[in-house]
Amino acid sequence: MNEQGMLHIPDSRFCFSLNTRNLILRLRVDRRDKIEKVEVIYESKYVIQQKQQRREMERKYEDRLFAYYEILLPLEDVRFAYLFRIWENGKGYYYSEDGLTEEYDFALAYFNFFQVAYINEADIHKEAQWMRQAVFYEIFIERFFCGIEDKDRSYINLEWGDKPSPKSFAGGDIPGITKKLDYISGLGINALYLTPIFCAISNHKYDISDYHMIDSHFGTNEDFGKLVRQAHKRGIKVVLDAVFNHCSELLPQFQDVLKRGKQSPYFNWFIINGDKPDKEKLNYEVFAFCDYMPKFNTSNPEVQEFLLNIAVSWIKKYDIDGWRLDVSDEVSHDFWRTFRKRVKEVKADCVIIGENWHDANSFLKGDQYDSIMNYAFTKACLDYYAFDTFGAEEFAWKLNELLMRNTDQVNAMMLNLLDSHDTDRFYTYVKKNKDKMLSAAAVMCMFIGAPCIYYGTEILLEGGYDPDNRRCFDWNEEHWDKEFGKQFREVIRLRQNKIVEKGQISITAKEDLFILSRYSEEGELVLIANQSGKEFLISYKGELLLKNQFEVKENAEETGKIQGKLKTDGFLIFKGSKDDLWMEQAI
Amino acid sequence: MNEQGMLHIPDSRFCFSLNTRNLILRLRVDRRDKIEKVEVIYESKYVIQQKQQRREMERKYEDRLFAYYEILLPLEDVRFAYLFRIWENGKGYYYSEDGLTEEYDFALAYFNFFQVAYINEADIHKEAQWMRQAVFYEIFIERFFCGIEDKDRSYINLEWGDKPSPKSFAGGDIPGITKKLDYISGLGINALYLTPIFCAISNHKYDISDYHMIDSHFGTNEDFGKLVRQAHKRGIKVVLDAVFNHCSELLPQFQDVLKRGKQSPYFNWFIINGDKPDKEKLNYEVFAFCDYMPKFNTSNPEVQEFLLNIAVSWIKKYDIDGWRLDVSDEVSHDFWRTFRKRVKEVKADCVIIGENWHDANSFLKGDQYDSIMNYAFTKACLDYYAFDTFGAEEFAWKLNELLMRNTDQVNAMMLNLLDSHDTDRFYTYVKKNKDKMLSAAAVMCMFIGAPCIYYGTEILLEGGYDPDNRRCFDWNEEHWDKEFGKQFREVIRLRQNKIVEKGQISITAKEDLFILSRYSEEGELVLIANQSGKEFLISYKGELLLKNQFEVKENAEETGKIQGKLKTDGFLIFKGSKDDLWMEQAI
Repeated sequence: MNEQGMLHIPDSRFCFSLNTRNLILRLRVDRRDKIEKVEVIYESKYVIQQKQQRREMERKYEDRLFAYYEILLPLEDVRFAYLFRIWENGKGYYYSEDGLTEEYDFALAYFNFFQVAYINEADIHKEAQWMRQAVFYEIFIERFFCGIEDKDRSYINLEWGDKPSPKSFAGGDIPGITKKLDYISGLGINALYLTPIFCAISNHKYDISDYHMIDSHFGTNEDFGKLVRQAHKRGIKVVLDAVFNHCSELLPQFQDVLKRGKQSPYFNWFIINGDKPDKEKLNYEVFAFCDYMPKFNTSNPEVQEFLLNIAVSWIKKYDIDGWRLDVSDEVSHDFWRTFRKRVKEVKADCVIIGENWHDANSFLKGDQYDSIMNYAFTKACLDYYAFDTFGAEEFAWKLNELLMRNTDQVNAMMLNLLDSHDTDRFYTYVKKNKDKMLSAAAVMCMFIGAPCIYYGTEILLEGGYDPDNRRCFDWNEEHWDKEFGKQFREVIRLRQNKIVEKGQISITAKEDLFILSRYSEEGELVLIANQSGKEFLISYKGELLLKNQFEVKENAEETGKIQGKLKTDGFLIFKGSKDDLWMEQAI
Repeated sequence: MNEQGMLHIPDSRFCFSLNTRNLILRLRVDRRDKIEKVEVIYESKYVIQQKQQRREMERKYEDRLFAYYEILLPLEDVRFAYLFRIWENGKGYYYSEDGLTEEYDFALAYFNFFQVAYINEADIHKEAQWMRQAVFYEIFIERFFCGIEDKDRSYINLEWGDKPSPKSFAGGDIPGITKKLDYISGLGINALYLTPIFCAISNHKYDISDYHMIDSHFGTNEDFGKLVRQAHKRGIKVVLDAVFNHCSELLPQFQDVLKRGKQSPYFNWFIINGDKPDKEKLNYEVFAFCDYMPKFNTSNPEVQEFLLNIAVSWIKKYDIDGWRLDVSDEVSHDFWRTFRKRVKEVKADCVIIGENWHDANSFLKGDQYDSIMNYAFTKACLDYYAFDTFGAEEFAWKLNELLMRNTDQVNAMMLNLLDSHDTDRFYTYVKKNKDKMLSAAAVMCMFIGAPCIYYGTEILLEGGYDPDNRRCFDWNEEHWDKEFGKQFREVIRLRQNKIVEKGQISITAKEDLFILSRYSEEGELVLIANQSGKEFLISYKGELLLKNQFEVKENAEETGKIQGKLKTDGFLIFKGSKDDLWMEQAI
C-alpha cells in the first residue's frame, strides 16, 4: 500500500456531520492499491478503549490518483472516536492519527484515534433545501429584453442584435425579465441569477455607486419588487450579485475621500497608501487594476455594517433568495463569517454562492459560503467536450475529484455552469456542435449541484470572450432551433426527478464511454455519453428517458432489453441499472 | 516520484501569511523521492500569465513518510499566484492544482494555478510575542503552598506530604503562590498556568459554581489581584483555566432548572432530553459521564454572553494574560470564534490555549485559539524517553511531523509539556532517571513553542496517574536534589537565548543520536541527545553551553575543536554548527 497516498483529516471534508446523529467519513487511498476491504472501527470516545463497533465502507469515488472509501454512520453519542481497518492481500492494517500499523493497542487509543470530539449543532453546515431542485438561469440584464415601454432611450448606443463592444448599451432591463418570466418558467427554470442591478455607470454594473437603488436604466426599486413577486408566484427564486469587494469611484463615500483625503470620515473605508487617493499613481487598492473600482476595507467595522445592512435589507424588503458574491476570494474569511450569520438570521435558506475560481474549501466549511460558482466543473467539461484534453476516463476522474473537494452539503448547493458572462460561451467553445452542447447540459443536469444556464444557451446564442459573450437575446422565434430547444427543455426537466434530487452518484468510464449514474431507493438513472469519435453498440435493460444520436435497433419487450447504436457526441439516459449495461465498439 | 504523496493546500498550514508582505509556502513530498530541487514559480495573480519569478525552496523537515520543502516569500502584491517546479533525474515537472505535469501552459494558468487571492489583514494569525520567551509553570493550587496564615483549616483532610486521594484537601491556596513568586522567578519561570481558581466543591475546581469569585479555600478576589500584580512586577504572566464546556450542578442557573424544569428561564442553558434534568437517568449532557458537571449549551446566545462576560471581565479587572480552555474540543468552533474576538479586543496579546489532545488544526487557523496544550509532543517524548518505542530517528520524525501540522505562528505559541495534572509525572514514567528527565527538559526548552513545567518537576516530585500526580510540593529544601535543580535551571535559561527565541529549527538523527538545532543570523545552537544505550565519541567546534553525562576528553584551543564521550541518557548543547559535528560509537 502507498501509505504516503493515504489521507484522512477529521473535522474536514473527510469527516463531517449532516446533523447531530449522522456523520460521513471518507478515507482517501492510492487508486492503484490492491485493497480488498476498508472498515471503520468506532465507538463513543469514552468507551472505545473497552469496546468497538465495525462497519464496512464503500469504495465510491475514483480520480486520477486516488480512490475514496465512504460511509454514512448513524451515531448514538455526539462524542465519537474511530480509526480504519484496511485489508490487503488477506492482511489487516490499522490506520490512525499515527498512520498505518499492523498492531493497535486500544488501551492507548486515546493518544492517536481520530475523533469527533463533539458534534455541535452550531457548526453543522445546513443545506438550503430548494437548491436540490434548482435550475438557474443567469441573465446579463443589459442584453436580455427591454421591458420599459416609455423608456428614455438616449443612453442606448447599440442596435438590438448588433455585436456589443465594452461600452455598448442595448437597453435590457428588469421589467424585461418580468415580462419574460413565463418564457423562462417554460424552459423549466426555477431560479434566476442576475448580474448586478444597482446604480452603476457601466453596462455590467459591477461598479456600484448606490447599493440601495436599482440603476435607472434597469428600472425602479418597485420594478424589482414586482419581478421578485412575479417570480415567486411561478416558483422561481431570485439570487442577486453582491459586489462587496469594491465599489465605483462615484460612491459618495469615495468621492468624499477624493475631495478631503485624510479629513474625510470615510478615509479608512478604503485602503490608501498616502494622504489622498491619486488615480495617476494608483496609490489605493482597487479591483484588478481598475482605478475606478476602489476596494473596500472590509476590516473596518463601519464598512462591514454598511455592507451587511445592504445584504440584509434586500432580503427583508424584497425577499430575495440568495447572494452571489463577486470576487469573494479577495474578501476576508472574517467578513464572510459575519455576513453568513447576518444573512441566515434573516432568511435561513437564503443561499450564499461565492465567486472563487479555485478550490475554495477554506471558504466552504459551513461558516462562510454555501457553495461557489463551479468553474472547475466548467473547465472539466471544456477539457472533455471542447479541448479534447480529456477522454471519458479523465473526465470521470476529474468530476469525482471535484466532488471530493467538499462536503455533501456544499456539493448539493454548488452552482454548476458551462459558461457565464466571464467566459466564452460553451456553444462557441464546442464550435457550434449542438450534440456536444446537449450532452454537456445533460451531464450538468445529472450531476450533483444546481445547474446554471447562461441566458440564450437554449436558442444557441454564440459568443467569444467579453464583450462578445454578452450578446443580445434574439427574440425572433423564427431564428430559433426548435428541435434543439425541445431537447434542451427535456434535459432541464431531469432535475425534477426525485433520484436526481436526492440520489447518490457514481461516475465512471468504460470503453471510451462516460457513465454517470444517480441512484436511491427509488431506482437508478444512467447517463452514457460518447465523445470518442467512434460508434458504440449499447444494450441495457430499462426505460429510455432521453437520447440524442442514439438509434434504437432492437426493443425486446419480453426481456426489457434495448439495443441501439450511440454515435459520437451523442448520449442517452435510461432508468435501469448500470450493472445491466453492455457495450461494444461498432465496426 | 510518488505523486499521490504530494500535498499542497492553499490557505492552510501549507500556505500562510505572517503579515501582508510575507508568505510561507510548504510543499509535502514522499520522503523517498529522489528530488534534486524544488522551486516556486510565482507572481502577482493578474500578471503571472505574462511573467513569472522563481525561487528555490529549502528541504527543511522530514518525518516518517514525508519531506517538506519550505520558503518564506517577500511579496510585492497581496494578490498572489504560484505553482511548483520539481526536478528529478534532471527532468523538471510542474505541480499545480491539476497535479504533476511535464508541460504547463501559462496562458491557461488562471484555471489551475495555486493562489492567495488576497492577503487580508483580518485573517492573519498574529502572535502574542511574549510567548516566544515564555517558560510556563503549571500549578495545581491545592498542593503547591498554603499561604493564608489565619485560614479556617476545618476542610483540610490531608496531612501535607501524604499521598492524596480524589477527595483530599491539603490546603494550598493563592497567597501560597504569591509568597513563592521569588522562588518561581528564581527557577527562570516567567509565566504561570493555574488550574481553576473559581468557586467549586472539588479540590481540582473544574466544577465551577461561581465564575466571578475565587474559591474561599484559595483566598479572595483581592488575593488574586495581588498575585497578578506581584507576578507582573517580576515579569511573570498569568494564564487561567477557562472551564466553559461545563459547570457544577451547583451553578445557580442549573439549580433553578433542577427545581423548575422547563419553567426555568435557564432551561435552554443546558442540553436536556426531557422536561427536567434527572440525575438517575442522566437525561442531560454532561462532561464525560459526570452527572454533577452539566454541559453548557454554548449555542444559546445568553450562555455565550454569560461566558464571554466572564472571559473579558477577568482580563479587564485583573489583567490576566491568557486563558487555557478546558475540554475545548467539545465546544463549537462558532463559540471560540466569538470568544477570540472578544478577548483580543480587550487585550491583543492575551494568549488562548486549547485543551485538544489530538491534531487540532481546524481550531488553529487563526480565528479560534492561538495554540493547544501539546500532548502530542508529550507522547513523542514518552515514546523516546520512557516507552522505548522510538529511536532517535523516529523521535526526530515525529517532532517534524508535529511542526508541520500547523503554521509558524501556532507553533511559536504551543504549550509544550512533558506532563500535567492529567498525566502521570514524566519523572515517574522514566522510572526516576534524572538524566532522561533533564534531557527531555532540554529538548522541550530548545523546541519551538513555550515549555510548560509541572510544579515540582524541579525537585523531582513523583506521581502516577490522578490523583497521585497531584502530590504536595515538598518545601523541605533538605530533600531537594540540589545538583539536579541547578542543571534544571540552566536548561530553563536556554529560553533566554535569542537564537532559541527567534531561530529556525532543524531536527534530525544520526548514528542513533538525536540532533536538534536552532539557527538564526546570530548563530546556531546544537543539542545532541543520546538514548541509544551506547556511548558515543563526539567532536565539534564551538562553545559548550550545557551538558549532562558528557565527558570532555580533548579541548584543542588552537582549532576550537572539542572531543568527548556522551554516555547514554546524556546530552550536550553547544554553540557552533551541526555541519562541524563528528560522532562515532565508543568501543
